[in-house]
Amino acid sequence: MKNELLVVIGANAAGMSAASKLRRLDTKKKILVFEKGKHPSFSACGIPYLIGGEVKSAKNLIARTPEEFLLNQNIEVKIQHEVLEIDVSKKRILILSLLDKTEFWQKYDDLLIATGTSPISPKLPGIEAKGVFAFSSLESGKSADRYIQKHQPKTAVIIGGGYIGIEMAEALLHLGMKVSLIDMAPQVMATLDPDMSEIIAAYMKKEGVDLFLGQKLESLEMDDSRTVSVVVTDKKRIKADLVILGIGVKPNSKIAEAAGIQIGAGGAIQVNKKLETSAEHIWAAGDCAESYHLVSGKEIFISLGTVANKHGQIAGINISGGKAEFPGVVGTAITKFKDLEISRTGLSEKEANQEGMDYDVALIESSVFSSYLPDSEKITVKLLSEKASGRLLGGQIVGGKGAGKRIDVIAIALQAKMTARDLVFADLAYVPPLSGVWDPVQIAARQLVK
Amino acid sequence: MKNELLVVIGANAAGMSAASKLRRLDTKKKILVFEKGKHPSFSACGIPYLIGGEVKSAKNLIARTPEEFLLNQNIEVKIQHEVLEIDVSKKRILILSLLDKTEFWQKYDDLLIATGTSPISPKLPGIEAKGVFAFSSLESGKSADRYIQKHQPKTAVIIGGGYIGIEMAEALLHLGMKVSLIDMAPQVMATLDPDMSEIIAAYMKKEGVDLFLGQKLESLEMDDSRTVSVVVTDKKRIKADLVILGIGVKPNSKIAEAAGIQIGAGGAIQVNKKLETSAEHIWAAGDCAESYHLVSGKEIFISLGTVANKHGQIAGINISGGKAEFPGVVGTAITKFKDLEISRTGLSEKEANQEGMDYDVALIESSVFSSYLPDSEKITVKLLSEKASGRLLGGQIVGGKGAGKRIDVIAIALQAKMTARDLVFADLAYVPPLSGVWDPVQIAARQLVK
Repeated sequence: MKNELLVVIGANAAGMSAASKLRRLDTKKKILVFEKGKHPSFSACGIPYLIGGEVKSAKNLIARTPEEFLLNQNIEVKIQHEVLEIDVSKKRILILSLLDKTEFWQKYDDLLIATGTSPISPKLPGIEAKGVFAFSSLESGKSADRYIQKHQPKTAVIIGGGYIGIEMAEALLHLGMKVSLIDMAPQVMATLDPDMSEIIAAYMKKEGVDLFLGQKLESLEMDDSRTVSVVVTDKKRIKADLVILGIGVKPNSKIAEAAGIQIGAGGAIQVNKKLETSAEHIWAAGDCAESYHLVSGKEIFISLGTVANKHGQIAGINISGGKAEFPGVVGTAITKFKDLEISRTGLSEKEANQEGMDYDVALIESSVFSSYLPDSEKITVKLLSEKASGRLLGGQIVGGKGAGKRIDVIAIALQAKMTARDLVFADLAYVPPLSGVWDPVQIAARQLVK
Repeated sequence: MKNELLVVIGANAAGMSAASKLRRLDTKKKILVFEKGKHPSFSACGIPYLIGGEVKSAKNLIARTPEEFLLNQNIEVKIQHEVLEIDVSKKRILILSLLDKTEFWQKYDDLLIATGTSPISPKLPGIEAKGVFAFSSLESGKSADRYIQKHQPKTAVIIGGGYIGIEMAEALLHLGMKVSLIDMAPQVMATLDPDMSEIIAAYMKKEGVDLFLGQKLESLEMDDSRTVSVVVTDKKRIKADLVILGIGVKPNSKIAEAAGIQIGAGGAIQVNKKLETSAEHIWAAGDCAESYHLVSGKEIFISLGTVANKHGQIAGINISGGKAEFPGVVGTAITKFKDLEISRTGLSEKEANQEGMDYDVALIESSVFSSYLPDSEKITVKLLSEKASGRLLGGQIVGGKGAGKRIDVIAIALQAKMTARDLVFADLAYVPPLSGVWDPVQIAARQLVK
């Protein structure tokens, strides 16, 4: 009767994927999940679309309720239970019930830490004002949604021009607000190179977003009701009825660190390919755990639902006694702003330089599908390959409808360690209304080979 | 002064790609191209969209005119010149000028055969009737277009439910015709398996196409003006003011065969990976030449613009004295019928059975992007993998907007000889309005791994 109980901390992508996978492989083991928030298993990536009104109800973002997990999979999910401490030597965790404020210890045989991330919230004057939101949970998304519906803000300032910033800009424009976006960096979407970001910035401006780049947030001013009124940067004062923080996220690894568990890249919990931490019978998965980058060959902190789900699968298999290894990531991500699709994978120039790599680069403009057909939109593709070997290092895509998911071709090519030449001769699909006879990705690869 | 002159037979994708590539690598060699038709370098795949009216003028389908080739690239293209004979021993070809009906011999140092394909036209009563069209050239597309505009046919019958048949069905429906489609096979799109084809057939019926499957064309009846009036199958008589033949194509390899050049798979000209034929200094590229299939490991006849362009590149490099090998194809193809996108790559079940392979198969239904957003359409993905090794063998996709090009991910995975498991853990891009957190292709791969 060994390892009878798996305790999971965190009931989102990684935690619930692992629990579900384990349950499919092992019908007997007891699975107990503690979740600080009010909802397990919600789509965090759906929050901007909830606020923008495309998703009609927050309920639609919830994959399963605790009742469903219990009934269908015999997985017990305790919401509003915060884990305060891990006691590695006694194999137990200290839990605070947010419902009745009681604390209790819970034993485990295996423990999976799937605590995710928290939004970075700078310690600045006025950051606690009403009307300032960051998204850490479905609750925070719902609060912002309720606040907007009640107070009908007219002017919004978004802090941070990354994925959340861009998606929230679309959502708030859609609600009719005047939207400003500030970023400390001189570009939006800093995971892409400046030449690609310029296309995005130009489009955002055209669609009515006021961009204030290379500006540092200094404080937020409030009115008498302690509601945010002005965003102050080192260069500018911007009126704001609503402020969205999209500065970035940090892994929730504090309780692991406090328990003496090894911390790795970017403050994420160190794991091996099986997703074991440095402590026996303790696993970590999802945003709070590091991932191996297949192109750079280094561990990184990456916060993505796709990776979290895969981590969960691997952890679930291994906790059941199986053997699985997570092969790693290539750093693929995608977003869209209105009709502009934006994606990236592998290393950017910036990252390749940081790695001290000698690379070739190609940047091409083409059309998403045959340009002799109506509505074919522009697509820009950037590709990097290693100078000596020709091995692909990364790609970036910005373009109209149908452009963004072309990144997957590059992602698979990176995973397979293909060269630019391999990609030129890849057998990609062509029909005039869906692609050119040379897919834009291949046009970029041809440019590289030259 | 050796190999000073390259003569090319056929001025389309393969021929002109080779000529252009050679010119970039060698500014001195003389390049002379003979083309039977009136236009070099046109997009054959664009013809259905010309007829449907989405492409406003046939001119838009022409990439470059002979004058432009001469002026910009110093490539001489002689249109309306048919090559009648290849004299291998004397390194010369016999040419008939269709302009003045004269014949003459032309010497070559290197000869590239890029004669493409011809539509299969069954020898049946009435096949010569007015109002019956098959597409072998831009001219034939233009004739059909002119005929339709002049005679305003009300009822059309399409013979053959393959790529051209499906695309022409969309075009003719768009023009307001009553469209019937007959096929000898019991399914449309025979390059996909019946379970996938059923989805297509159901959608086509819903959109108003009358399907007559498992019916053999026996004859065409004409009226007094020798215009087609009725299509007669072994089971049915169908009224028709217009008939489109989309039965298939055969490689134009007769003059090569007559010259003693080795013929290979499906009647296409046998070539090695350098695209050399069995005769010295004679190359073949494009639809008329065979290709190596990376999954089955066999040579095949495949007729696709994408492959023709790549063949042309390889031939151009090798004729210039460089060294390049065409790695092969995986059999990727795509089409769409109205809002339904249809794609396939690798081996179908039918083909895997023909190869005597032991395979697993998964077929899943999902949504193109997150189903909690409006307008997310259904996608069905079928995947095959080898039982023993788990290596992917092929994939088929049918679904709404954004579904079709997902096939490229599978195509690259086939090229890289990936397993279903590799695909499960691939780092594909996710944002709710463009994909699910597990891409549908990965959901199918997960199903396979189970």
